[in-house]
Amino acid sequence: MGFKVGLLGLGTVGTGTVEILQNREGRNSLLQEIEIYRVGVRSLNKQRLVSLPSEIMTTDLEAIVTDPEIDIVVEVMGGLEPARSLMLKAIAHGKHIVTANKAAIARYGDEIFTAAEKAGVYVLLEAAVGGGIPVIQPLKQSLGVNRIHSITGIVNGTTNYILTRMQTEGGEFADILADAQQLGYAEADPTADVDGFDAADKIAILASLAFGGRIKLQDVSCEGIRQVSAVDIAYAEKLGFAIKLLAVAKRPETASNEALDPEMLQVSVQPTLVPLIHPLASVGGVYNAILVEGEPIGQVMFFGPGAGSGPTASAVVSDILNIAAVLKTAGTTHQLHPLLSCSHQHYCRIAPISEVVTRFYARFLTKDRPGVIGNLGTCFGNHNVSLESVVQAGFFGELAEIVVVTQDVRTGNVRQALNEIRTLEAVESIPSILQVL
Amino acid sequence: MGFKVGLLGLGTVGTGTVEILQNREGRNSLLQEIEIYRVGVRSLNKQRLVSLPSEIMTTDLEAIVTDPEIDIVVEVMGGLEPARSLMLKAIAHGKHIVTANKAAIARYGDEIFTAAEKAGVYVLLEAAVGGGIPVIQPLKQSLGVNRIHSITGIVNGTTNYILTRMQTEGGEFADILADAQQLGYAEADPTADVDGFDAADKIAILASLAFGGRIKLQDVSCEGIRQVSAVDIAYAEKLGFAIKLLAVAKRPETASNEALDPEMLQVSVQPTLVPLIHPLASVGGVYNAILVEGEPIGQVMFFGPGAGSGPTASAVVSDILNIAAVLKTAGTTHQLHPLLSCSHQHYCRIAPISEVVTRFYARFLTKDRPGVIGNLGTCFGNHNVSLESVVQAGFFGELAEIVVVTQDVRTGNVRQALNEIRTLEAVESIPSILQVL
Repeated sequence: MGFKVGLLGLGTVGTGTVEILQNREGRNSLLQEIEIYRVGVRSLNKQRLVSLPSEIMTTDLEAIVTDPEIDIVVEVMGGLEPARSLMLKAIAHGKHIVTANKAAIARYGDEIFTAAEKAGVYVLLEAAVGGGIPVIQPLKQSLGVNRIHSITGIVNGTTNYILTRMQTEGGEFADILADAQQLGYAEADPTADVDGFDAADKIAILASLAFGGRIKLQDVSCEGIRQVSAVDIAYAEKLGFAIKLLAVAKRPETASNEALDPEMLQVSVQPTLVPLIHPLASVGGVYNAILVEGEPIGQVMFFGPGAGSGPTASAVVSDILNIAAVLKTAGTTHQLHPLLSCSHQHYCRIAPISEVVTRFYARFLTKDRPGVIGNLGTCFGNHNVSLESVVQAGFFGELAEIVVVTQDVRTGNVRQALNEIRTLEAVESIPSILQVL
Repeated sequence: MGFKVGLLGLGTVGTGTVEILQNREGRNSLLQEIEIYRVGVRSLNKQRLVSLPSEIMTTDLEAIVTDPEIDIVVEVMGGLEPARSLMLKAIAHGKHIVTANKAAIARYGDEIFTAAEKAGVYVLLEAAVGGGIPVIQPLKQSLGVNRIHSITGIVNGTTNYILTRMQTEGGEFADILADAQQLGYAEADPTADVDGFDAADKIAILASLAFGGRIKLQDVSCEGIRQVSAVDIAYAEKLGFAIKLLAVAKRPETASNEALDPEMLQVSVQPTLVPLIHPLASVGGVYNAILVEGEPIGQVMFFGPGAGSGPTASAVVSDILNIAAVLKTAGTTHQLHPLLSCSHQHYCRIAPISEVVTRFYARFLTKDRPGVIGNLGTCFGNHNVSLESVVQAGFFGELAEIVVVTQDVRTGNVRQALNEIRTLEAVESIPSILQVL
């Protein structure tokens, strides 16, 4: 046996990882050199879906990360602590790390990668974004020769499942969320998913890889899907769009906003109207997809299962295998593989959300009388917001429902215009404001 | 400068490669260690889109592949010879190879990889399939822990462009081919593309990587798109399908064909009806996409530009970078990276096409009289072919047009049934027989 793995956690992903490592036939032959050496769990008595020798099971996770025999620590326990401390201790003991923990990496990537760099070990995290979809490694190894312009992802399966069902069934968010919870597609506490925090963790990680700098999570503008209603989905479809929760990291479009530093990044998560002919529009259900745009490659998209035991375990084990392969190649040298290690140490500067230039969709409830559309148009014009279309779309009780789509405009300008519109006597409310891709 | 590159060919892809290597800002910093050391061309006097020092240009390609200073030979000249001989000579002189040459690899991969293994050098070929789409490296490095069940690809941009236009415009193959030739989307001699040979080269390469054995190109069953007519595309759409030229490599479905060895592979290229909700159905124009199915990952798809100077050069340069990264890591050791080198030496056994189990679409022109559908049904039944639907779809002059979709059936049985049907007095002709995904 060549490489000894210490596994932290035997939940969904850990179980899937063991299943692959215990059933090697028909898979890459390098798996034969990987040994599950110790497995750390919370309780030794729990019924398990995989059978492991009892002598390798332990509740002493510290003993795993400090065990001199172990080469690679696989952290699939999730959560912030003790995952962070265990990873740091493992690194300090010269272990390579494979992790699926997007939350910990998005928050503590800074200290984890700095420690790894110092210790000369790898921290691989293919499973942290997009479940089984190979996207981290392609970003590091295949796409790095490009100048990346943008990454646009559907990276949260729960919200995509809810939005897809809202679209096909015409149902409301709250009802479909409740059903999704019953079916196991959403957690009992759905906040991390439906409020966009999980997607924010993931886009912070992707942006960091694609743009070669670290990202402070608090700089990621984040909005979930609670405000998306069946009415918006129906109007969007009529206008030729699907509504998706998009996680986006991109260089600003300097042409339309020359004052903005081209080195600044825009990183955000928000429900967005996606043209039906766009490759991301047809990504349905729990599937994830990540679209990368760069020069000279143009557009490439990675599509697949964004979660689940098997797919996520596929990503975890591929990372284990990649570390094993590099270690075999390196022999006794201690030079880290420059495309697999993380060497950047500066932080990306993030443009304030008010500077982001994009199109917007907004829905207004107004009194039903002449001149209202004119009033709206004037307010937008006052703040330099050009409109693509203004449609009185229907009625909501006594009120008229007006749907506006803007041209590419500065977000700050739109916000100012909307603030002015809210003061108009004829305007009852602005139930939704969504970005348009 | 760390690594010296000798470039064979300065056509579309070679030019794109030089453009990336000459404009490093904003790309992976490892590019700074790559030097374009010599460039081999056919004519020194030709006008070029990139400017290179005249002293590194040469028409003596042999001198490049034998130059002791050169670390990596990049073969982007295309064609079988002298590309094959130059690659073999470069390998014999200890050079690593990066190539975009699917035709040479599909035909001579055997001797090229055997030579490379012996010499201890890498032969990387990301650019050979799917242009800029990272698919070769993900197959080798990220998906190898899976048991691959199938690879299904739209891997030829020219035919996908033609079929997409036939679908959106309702035009006939010959007219759109002629237009595509004028626009530069199809070659003056379109055979390699429209008859499926280019796709056959690519699926042979993908199958070899995914299933870990070499593939004899003559074992790949290959059919192009010349027989696809506007009528078929229209009927397919009515039935809920788009017609795509699919390149497929898969393990046989043993459940429906127990006699067949599960170790056998089916490798083929043919126009196929793809359900409109399938991820491959919406891949339009010159785009390529490769769908990989395996256990435990499920389905993952890679989508992007399948050709073009920039995208293909992105793949070429990423291979150069990957070799440079591994060489830096390996130092003076001579152990090849086990996931990047090609070690399999056996040939995959390929199932005869008659044993392939799939659904079929067939269109018949028959005399317009009662009992014809019954006759067709009886012939199919005689050969154990179950039908999903039989529809008299319309008229073609005096003749009735009947469209049949079968259930999953053995190809050999369908062929026998069709041979019997051809003998029926009421049947004028069978203008199309297409697979159904």
